Amino acid sequence: MSLRFPISGTTAAEANVQRPGMSLLVTGSIGIDTVEAPSGEVVDALGGSSVYFSYAASFFTDVRFVGVVGDDCPEGFLDPLQENPRVDMTGLEVREGSRTFRWHGRYHEDVNQRDTVAVELNVLAEVGPTIPEPFRDSKYVFLANTHPGLQLEMLSQLAAPRLVVADTMDLWITTEHEAVLRLLKHVNGMVLNDSEARLLTEMPNVVAAGMEIARDVQGPVVIKRGEHGSLLFAEGKVYPLPSCPMAAVVDPTGAGDTFAGAMMGYVADQDRSDPATLRRAIAYGTVTASIVLEDFSLNRLLVTRREDIDARLAEFQQLVAF
Amino acid sequence: MSLRFPISGTTAAEANVQRPGMSLLVTGSIGIDTVEAPSGEVVDALGGSSVYFSYAASFFTDVRFVGVVGDDCPEGFLDPLQENPRVDMTGLEVREGSRTFRWHGRYHEDVNQRDTVAVELNVLAEVGPTIPEPFRDSKYVFLANTHPGLQLEMLSQLAAPRLVVADTMDLWITTEHEAVLRLLKHVNGMVLNDSEARLLTEMPNVVAAGMEIARDVQGPVVIKRGEHGSLLFAEGKVYPLPSCPMAAVVDPTGAGDTFAGAMMGYVADQDRSDPATLRRAIAYGTVTASIVLEDFSLNRLLVTRREDIDARLAEFQQLVAF
Repeated sequence: MSLRFPISGTTAAEANVQRPGMSLLVTGSIGIDTVEAPSGEVVDALGGSSVYFSYAASFFTDVRFVGVVGDDCPEGFLDPLQENPRVDMTGLEVREGSRTFRWHGRYHEDVNQRDTVAVELNVLAEVGPTIPEPFRDSKYVFLANTHPGLQLEMLSQLAAPRLVVADTMDLWITTEHEAVLRLLKHVNGMVLNDSEARLLTEMPNVVAAGMEIARDVQGPVVIKRGEHGSLLFAEGKVYPLPSCPMAAVVDPTGAGDTFAGAMMGYVADQDRSDPATLRRAIAYGTVTASIVLEDFSLNRLLVTRREDIDARLAEFQQLVAF
Repeated sequence: MSLRFPISGTTAAEANVQRPGMSLLVTGSIGIDTVEAPSGEVVDALGGSSVYFSYAASFFTDVRFVGVVGDDCPEGFLDPLQENPRVDMTGLEVREGSRTFRWHGRYHEDVNQRDTVAVELNVLAEVGPTIPEPFRDSKYVFLANTHPGLQLEMLSQLAAPRLVVADTMDLWITTEHEAVLRLLKHVNGMVLNDSEARLLTEMPNVVAAGMEIARDVQGPVVIKRGEHGSLLFAEGKVYPLPSCPMAAVVDPTGAGDTFAGAMMGYVADQDRSDPATLRRAIAYGTVTASIVLEDFSLNRLLVTRREDIDARLAEFQQLVAF
């Protein structure tokens, strides 16, 4: 499968070139985030769906990153990805004359609730990035949350992906409903929030909603429920998993993308997507997400090792068993 | 331990007399319920916290029932309990000149939300029942949701219970705050909803709230989260469990009391309350609750056998494992 560590003596870029075709491709947003939470705040921090996703996935497999920033993107801003030997940044475009996506959120005392203070789509409202030629044979693909039109455009550039999973959000379900429905026809997996699943299907019962979406995409669907865990819909069954109980949460931003990244990273590394593999992948997603929300931005992930994730998985497994 | 089936040839009442002292005692409400839900409605149906609790517990152990109805209680209303050989109804008081507790609820299209259309406390606002002398040696006790003053009064009549678990509700936390805090000092276990745990502790994080309540009662605490499962706080650890995914729910009334009944029934039958036993007990509570909400009132439980519960538990265990 893929190399677990960069080849000693080669740069990350050189190592990347030699990687086989089953790598995981991700495309989505790169964000300059300002986050206010009861426990503090960060200004102009690294964020964005594909950033959290790819860093989390890199604990498990090699990742091919595709995304766009503007020329306002600060020097060294993407260093956590650039310096990560398992993330191939060939697909990063720095677009002259454009501005980077920005998001400013404020979490309530109950951090499960937040307000968007400001959002500037900027480069996300423009034409999407081009998928580099060497990336087009990717077997596993994650279309992180962005405009469904862009997601479809990305998808059309790929040769013969085996598993394409997309995320979306309430904004697109409401404003671009037709495009989201078209997206469902072209992917074979979805990861989305419970409120989004209900909105998309107009069904109040989240289990019924997930079953309908799984029928539409004819592949696995994962419904994320934040602190309430997740539901996997696969091959006609529904697999529930709780989240890791957290007595304190610093910043939930990116937890959903981290979840998806670890999940897809494990799936790509295993090169399987049967229900048993997906269940373990989701458990990895769950514990990796529980790590990212212990600090702002990607800070906590940056000091995490794969062994830390495995240790938390083992602990989680013991807590859930009965 | 306790007899699994009534001795052939004796009446239920005779069998009960011979049961040992570790039986499970429950006291709480008996209700005449009217329930409107998207899938239909029932008028003047059997309900109440101690009714759901004791029927669910009877799948696992013998139950000693204590409760009061008024003289308006219809003939045969309590037959499902009266005819259940594992429920000892010695503690049922039919109070002359009083009226039975009545509740009328209406569920939304999303059955996780409901409105109380009408509530008549009636006999619940009067003096509590007396615990029959032969019940006072009970080892396992569940004080189902009712006025905390009544719960304390019941508790004072018991000799030396080993595990006393109480439920409560937002109404009492708000209107009888001091009495609820006093109750916490006199029990060694609690079962309550997530919103109630937050209200009681004034903590937005439900995990932190549960940890504080567990410190207060110096025993296990179970936080029920409805469709999102439950959290067990025991011996310094937090054990999450999801609920059984249900694509359709007919009537969620009594699901929480059914959960507690199966849980406490299993604990009493095992005569243990260590974390491993509690986790299995909670899994039994979870699957038994998933059965009760498939129909109105106790209807679905009345056609359920212990084997059905065990089969659902085995299935649930497979879905949750990873």
